[in-house]
Amino acid sequence: MNNYTSIHDIKNLSKTIQEAITLKANPFQFDTLGKHKTLVMLFFNSSLRTRLSTEKAAKNLGMDVMILDISNTWNLEFKDGTVMNLQTAEHIKEAAQVISQYADIIAVRAFPSLKNKEEDASEYILNSFKTYASVPIVNMESATAHPLQALTDAITITEHAIKKKPKVVLSWAPHPKALPHAVANSFIKTMQLLDVDLSVTHPKGYDLASEIIKDTPVFYNQKKALQDADFVYVKNWSSYDQYGQVISQDPNWMITKEKIGNASCMHCLPVRRNMVIADAVLDSENSIVIPQANNRTFAAQIVLKNLLEQLSS
Amino acid sequence: MNNYTSIHDIKNLSKTIQEAITLKANPFQFDTLGKHKTLVMLFFNSSLRTRLSTEKAAKNLGMDVMILDISNTWNLEFKDGTVMNLQTAEHIKEAAQVISQYADIIAVRAFPSLKNKEEDASEYILNSFKTYASVPIVNMESATAHPLQALTDAITITEHAIKKKPKVVLSWAPHPKALPHAVANSFIKTMQLLDVDLSVTHPKGYDLASEIIKDTPVFYNQKKALQDADFVYVKNWSSYDQYGQVISQDPNWMITKEKIGNASCMHCLPVRRNMVIADAVLDSENSIVIPQANNRTFAAQIVLKNLLEQLSS
Amino acid sequence: MNNYTSIHDIKNLSKTIQEAITLKANPFQFDTLGKHKTLVMLFFNSSLRTRLSTEKAAKNLGMDVMILDISNTWNLEFKDGTVMNLQTAEHIKEAAQVISQYADIIAVRAFPSLKNKEEDASEYILNSFKTYASVPIVNMESATAHPLQALTDAITITEHAIKKKPKVVLSWAPHPKALPHAVANSFIKTMQLLDVDLSVTHPKGYDLASEIIKDTPVFYNQKKALQDADFVYVKNWSSYDQYGQVISQDPNWMITKEKIGNASCMHCLPVRRNMVIADAVLDSENSIVIPQANNRTFAAQIVLKNLLEQLSS
Repeated sequence: MNNYTSIHDIKNLSKTIQEAITLKANPFQFDTLGKHKTLVMLFFNSSLRTRLSTEKAAKNLGMDVMILDISNTWNLEFKDGTVMNLQTAEHIKEAAQVISQYADIIAVRAFPSLKNKEEDASEYILNSFKTYASVPIVNMESATAHPLQALTDAITITEHAIKKKPKVVLSWAPHPKALPHAVANSFIKTMQLLDVDLSVTHPKGYDLASEIIKDTPVFYNQKKALQDADFVYVKNWSSYDQYGQVISQDPNWMITKEKIGNASCMHCLPVRRNMVIADAVLDSENSIVIPQANNRTFAAQIVLKNLLEQLSS
Repeated sequence: MNNYTSIHDIKNLSKTIQEAITLKANPFQFDTLGKHKTLVMLFFNSSLRTRLSTEKAAKNLGMDVMILDISNTWNLEFKDGTVMNLQTAEHIKEAAQVISQYADIIAVRAFPSLKNKEEDASEYILNSFKTYASVPIVNMESATAHPLQALTDAITITEHAIKKKPKVVLSWAPHPKALPHAVANSFIKTMQLLDVDLSVTHPKGYDLASEIIKDTPVFYNQKKALQDADFVYVKNWSSYDQYGQVISQDPNWMITKEKIGNASCMHCLPVRRNMVIADAVLDSENSIVIPQANNRTFAAQIVLKNLLEQLSS
Repeated sequence: MNNYTSIHDIKNLSKTIQEAITLKANPFQFDTLGKHKTLVMLFFNSSLRTRLSTEKAAKNLGMDVMILDISNTWNLEFKDGTVMNLQTAEHIKEAAQVISQYADIIAVRAFPSLKNKEEDASEYILNSFKTYASVPIVNMESATAHPLQALTDAITITEHAIKKKPKVVLSWAPHPKALPHAVANSFIKTMQLLDVDLSVTHPKGYDLASEIIKDTPVFYNQKKALQDADFVYVKNWSSYDQYGQVISQDPNWMITKEKIGNASCMHCLPVRRNMVIADAVLDSENSIVIPQANNRTFAAQIVLKNLLEQLSS
């Protein structure tokens, strides 16, 4: 693994999931592997879980961690050839090369604008770091992907599955704000790699990119989709066709106790209670959102461990 | 000790004070006790002394520290049953449980609004963390209490006392802004546990909560109150009856060289010079505010040490 | 060395440069020197390179690092005798003494206002820390000096020089915003100590302080100045005579491929491409700005190492 910007950067997903579960049982087993190695975490957007779990994962491996919150005071230029006489003070070419000299691994969080589909799809921030940095890049959620969350989800489903090929349904749910597609995209791409029966359900107008969906079944009828599900992964996203728009907040799509049945309920958090998922689900044994969040640490740790081993090989 | 949210969480205050003084003489004596243990510090409000001293205390014990500044971008919901379709993005139930999985101890700073007496008195932020977190909670100043400061003050008075039962006076002093009651409350509660002759002085209208004051003598005549004091603890607070109001900035209540006499002058800092305490006091040998601030480290360190020992027992 | 606030705090510059180059070859050689020692980094202004490189330098030496971003919420008072009844909440006397108790070394970044020449020249922030702190102070760029950058530059020129007494030219270049004189000042002071042929070039009206320039040749004709240069150090600064004003943005002063010739091009970064330096220079082998930025770590590390050795002696 040279970078971790997509779930496809993992060569053997099943093996990596098992390694993460083993690591979880003994998280300090490799606590000198990262000695004298530095993780620089760059946040273009704020973060709770990703920040704490990734920092903790690095420290479990003995790494040093340096965190930089990129505010408006540090505007980066990403375009080639620009005459930088306006708002941008530093070009990504310099920034990425310079930070590479202070870091052994760079982790980047940069959300989409949700205003310009092509620009977001280009992943210009993440890809510029990949292009110009001389050290591995870890994606802490980019415009279109959140592979640390997706690996977390794969670990969680593996741990909680009680049958060989569980039925996994990704269900859209309402939310007052326009949210990115990153979590949904990476979840689908990851489940497509595992031995699960995957389907997606959302209202009309909320279709995800066809290159993500591929041949995964999509249902506009949530009730039908959720039938006999083993895992219901709940997530809001804004419209992809009417890019970045909130075209429905239909409360009928909220996940309720009745809808969840015997399934395990997953969510990447933060979750708006009684808007996205009802209290009765989150406060029941159906909810596995808390152990799911715990696995963020071990997803990050197995990724960092693999990158560190690559560095020293 | 399961949490440290009040001075009453300390079972044997005198013993703990002595342990802190012993620790101060050799602060790195237990520098492996916190190995592989993480302190997460959550700041709903900014901090200088509390932040640096608590972080240092944790590192003196070999702990890892992760710091999260909670800004307006991360609005927590504290009420049960709310339909979260407005400003709050995450419920404390999830937040506290999730952070507990990344932390061995969580320290929280959350000031009062000073607008709603009942809400502040309910300590809903601190108590929600206590309710939902699965790890010990340390109060780094809440709406109504600042027990790390109070333990600091007890250590400082113990170190500097030259007679068996020193006279300790808590004196209100003027300030341009409305300040919380937390420091005054915790100081009084702590002094009530020690063998000191405690009294309080403030202008009319500044009476503290009666359940705090209990039978501690209160004087509206500052001069009379300060007579023959060994320690004068200076602090502003806003009115408790006319909740959160500044009803006096009377400069006659400033602590001057004349008023302090031979007493030691204490203050939790930051202090507004020549408004709260005169330069002539702060720049004299009467002032022990600097060694007092130094004890913040050892108060935090003895608390963390006790919590860590509890964790591993 | 008791503090590092000016390049003149280094007793033997050549020896220190060589020690830094040696350290760079083996940066973890002294990784226990800083054990149980804490660097507190105070940022009155934001920082990328200085922050990451200084933090990394400290950790390479085994130090603990605590970082405090000083925002508008923590206004310090620097004047003696003020009645602090307005915006300032804490006096530097207390702040510096208190932080000294939590730190073994304090590093401070505080830019000039560029509005009041005398006030900026007084270096009241940095000097107040020197006056009141009881531990060594490191200047991470003050109103008028940036000695960590200047030591970096000296290391870089020493590494890259291919003749005994290289010709070094500091050239002003255009910039849309008013920038401080600190980098230019410290660069000149440092080069004056080395065996180089130093000159400075800038448009009329951009003369630096005469006590900095001393007998260093100054040219208003950039072309003439750059002739046969071995190193061209590019930097914008605002007018010193018309204090803090941008009196020219003349694009003819931008550094181009033609102007740079065979010289090595240096810049402290961040650099505005095609405004200050052309892409054709920055993307060519003439540019040594990236290895120059790398040396920030080792400049900081040799300074911290010297201060730590002083502490324990």
